[in-house]
Amino acid sequence: MSQTTLPECQTLLLRRDGWRLHVTLNRPEARNAMSFAMVRELQAVFAAIAGDREVRAVVLRGAGGNFCAGGDIKDMAGARGAEPGPDGKDPLATTNRIFGSMLQQIEDAPQAIVAVLEGAVMGGGFGLCCVSDVAVAADDVKLRLPETGLGVPPAQIAPFIVRRVGYGEARRLAVTGGSLDAGEALRLGLVHHVSDRAGLDGQVAKVLADIGRCAPEAVATTKRLVLAASGAPHGDALSALLDLAADDFARAARGSEGVEGMLAFIQKRNAAWNDQ
Amino acid sequence: MSQTTLPECQTLLLRRDGWRLHVTLNRPEARNAMSFAMVRELQAVFAAIAGDREVRAVVLRGAGGNFCAGGDIKDMAGARGAEPGPDGKDPLATTNRIFGSMLQQIEDAPQAIVAVLEGAVMGGGFGLCCVSDVAVAADDVKLRLPETGLGVPPAQIAPFIVRRVGYGEARRLAVTGGSLDAGEALRLGLVHHVSDRAGLDGQVAKVLADIGRCAPEAVATTKRLVLAASGAPHGDALSALLDLAADDFARAARGSEGVEGMLAFIQKRNAAWNDQ
Amino acid sequence: MSQTTLPECQTLLLRRDGWRLHVTLNRPEARNAMSFAMVRELQAVFAAIAGDREVRAVVLRGAGGNFCAGGDIKDMAGARGAEPGPDGKDPLATTNRIFGSMLQQIEDAPQAIVAVLEGAVMGGGFGLCCVSDVAVAADDVKLRLPETGLGVPPAQIAPFIVRRVGYGEARRLAVTGGSLDAGEALRLGLVHHVSDRAGLDGQVAKVLADIGRCAPEAVATTKRLVLAASGAPHGDALSALLDLAADDFARAARGSEGVEGMLAFIQKRNAAWNDQ
Repeated sequence: MSQTTLPECQTLLLRRDGWRLHVTLNRPEARNAMSFAMVRELQAVFAAIAGDREVRAVVLRGAGGNFCAGGDIKDMAGARGAEPGPDGKDPLATTNRIFGSMLQQIEDAPQAIVAVLEGAVMGGGFGLCCVSDVAVAADDVKLRLPETGLGVPPAQIAPFIVRRVGYGEARRLAVTGGSLDAGEALRLGLVHHVSDRAGLDGQVAKVLADIGRCAPEAVATTKRLVLAASGAPHGDALSALLDLAADDFARAARGSEGVEGMLAFIQKRNAAWNDQ
Repeated sequence: MSQTTLPECQTLLLRRDGWRLHVTLNRPEARNAMSFAMVRELQAVFAAIAGDREVRAVVLRGAGGNFCAGGDIKDMAGARGAEPGPDGKDPLATTNRIFGSMLQQIEDAPQAIVAVLEGAVMGGGFGLCCVSDVAVAADDVKLRLPETGLGVPPAQIAPFIVRRVGYGEARRLAVTGGSLDAGEALRLGLVHHVSDRAGLDGQVAKVLADIGRCAPEAVATTKRLVLAASGAPHGDALSALLDLAADDFARAARGSEGVEGMLAFIQKRNAAWNDQ
Repeated sequence: MSQTTLPECQTLLLRRDGWRLHVTLNRPEARNAMSFAMVRELQAVFAAIAGDREVRAVVLRGAGGNFCAGGDIKDMAGARGAEPGPDGKDPLATTNRIFGSMLQQIEDAPQAIVAVLEGAVMGGGFGLCCVSDVAVAADDVKLRLPETGLGVPPAQIAPFIVRRVGYGEARRLAVTGGSLDAGEALRLGLVHHVSDRAGLDGQVAKVLADIGRCAPEAVATTKRLVLAASGAPHGDALSALLDLAADDFARAARGSEGVEGMLAFIQKRNAAWNDQ
């Protein structure tokens, strides 16, 4: 087994099983909402294994029956009240941008990425699904993009949605809030296999067996070729797009829609624009 | 309600219902074929609401049980006989180009665009479907690209087909004439919901309810991000492509295939190349 | 009928039927594996008809119940042992590159390309499927990308897979070896029609009838517009990508994975990385 030292993590459970690394988002009390700490730890894990071909697959899963309920509300509230950094950047843009860096890092990983989706898959969790190579879903999964209902765009996630489901479906999800059950997610290619919870581990094992037959360096090379051939912005062009998206996010969050969306959420009422 | 003054229209019926604008193509005697007048009026409507966030959704529909049977034959015949403009451009290229401008304008609209498809959806009507964010179809819908059967390419529509259904399916539609029923259109993502005619209004209402929960400025921003992230030519690059496509159209229409296709259509016979 | 002189072929059967050219890969004893000779002959055929609009459709099929089992092993072994060319290029890169040139040439063909898939569709055969405009499959078809299981990337094929099935599905196929049955291939848009073997000819005839109604020059123009609008690298950009991919292939084939993969294949055992 490789000598890679994995980072100590508070929000993730890590388990090596030969060439497979199981990474479990472990904040079940918050449905594994992505705190900034969790994002940093995910980045540290993927940085640690980036050069290690003996880690050939990463299995991303959530603890306690949910995958991930999106970004952590408390951390976002903290960024809203923070002072601008030395670069003069709005801390809402700076912190938003980190989610995109993490997604880009995982997309660029040489390993095969398998996402195992159960329960809530929202916002940033939806983004993680989009950068996986293979997504296996429990039949009770609920995917959703809650951002526009809260008055902000799914800024860092949007490019990865487009790559995953194509432009047409991404537009539809953008204007309708992106609620999908397992069958719709399968039809769109967001997920590739659906199973009841009893069969989920067996389905994941089958996917890992397929991955195990493929040579690791050849897989890494093929992933790189596929990204280069996609026509989608990647590398610096993607980074530039995510920079602009982070500014869009901060502007929206401080604008009237973002403020109203946050208040409505806290007060458990419909936002002003929502006349349902 | 916003103070936007909507233009007077002869070929469209306009109806505001709160934040929803219902636009009905209203030439039922011609199955709502798109005359130049109709194109100009659609452009005027979208120009009028481009800056108005109180118009959050546009519902496009056809009067009399059909969506749109494509471009208007009489207007096209007129352009064929017209003198070149002061720019020396073939009037067939100039008038063809306007359809692409309209499609690009609607694609760039900040509003959520909902297309409600019944009966015939051909040529330019197919193009309108492709630039909608959500398409709801009656189960008796018939989509078709009649252009190549008439000896000309679906020039202004082709880029929007590629964006909607992907390159592979666009190629298939290009060589086979693109006849699709509701089920195939659903499978390709051309349409997102299929319903019998009795259930059509209910399905549209559900889509509008989803849109209503999303903040309008956040939706506009997300649509912009999704387009930028698509990798498809947009903005000036798309305009340049549509310019070339308009020249291709005029050349084909004046070439032997275009002349034979028009004659065969008028004489209600098979074109010479069609040995069926 | 046009005066185009078709090349003499050893590995292909050619048959003209009016505007239809039937091209049959004819090495049934090797499941129509693509030898360099076959690649050269396919290139010669497509070069001969490139300017001939009286050949309006090419039907690609395999003799003996299989479509194509990929690249020919003996030719590849020969390239491995050959001296570098006068350009200093690794002959493994030079020969690999030719597959991509052939695929690009077929993609750029003005004719409608129909692939009829039966039995084995592997590697380069998978690539041919990806550059067809319409693919009709027998229900017993087995598609597979064996390359990564042999320690090399599907280098020249990868860009065409991405264009056909989209980036998300291409990533999944890249890491899992890409085994697909007819139903999955249909769902992904790799193939467009599935039929039992008895109904296969009837389905191909229907597709050809649709093609026959479309004007040949208009089809050629539309195919060109669709490619230009796709956002995927094409022309020189695609050639540059395929050059890099050929170098990737040669490096992998001479690296430890490529050598082990070849030995394991010859010795009919699992490769060292495959712990199944």
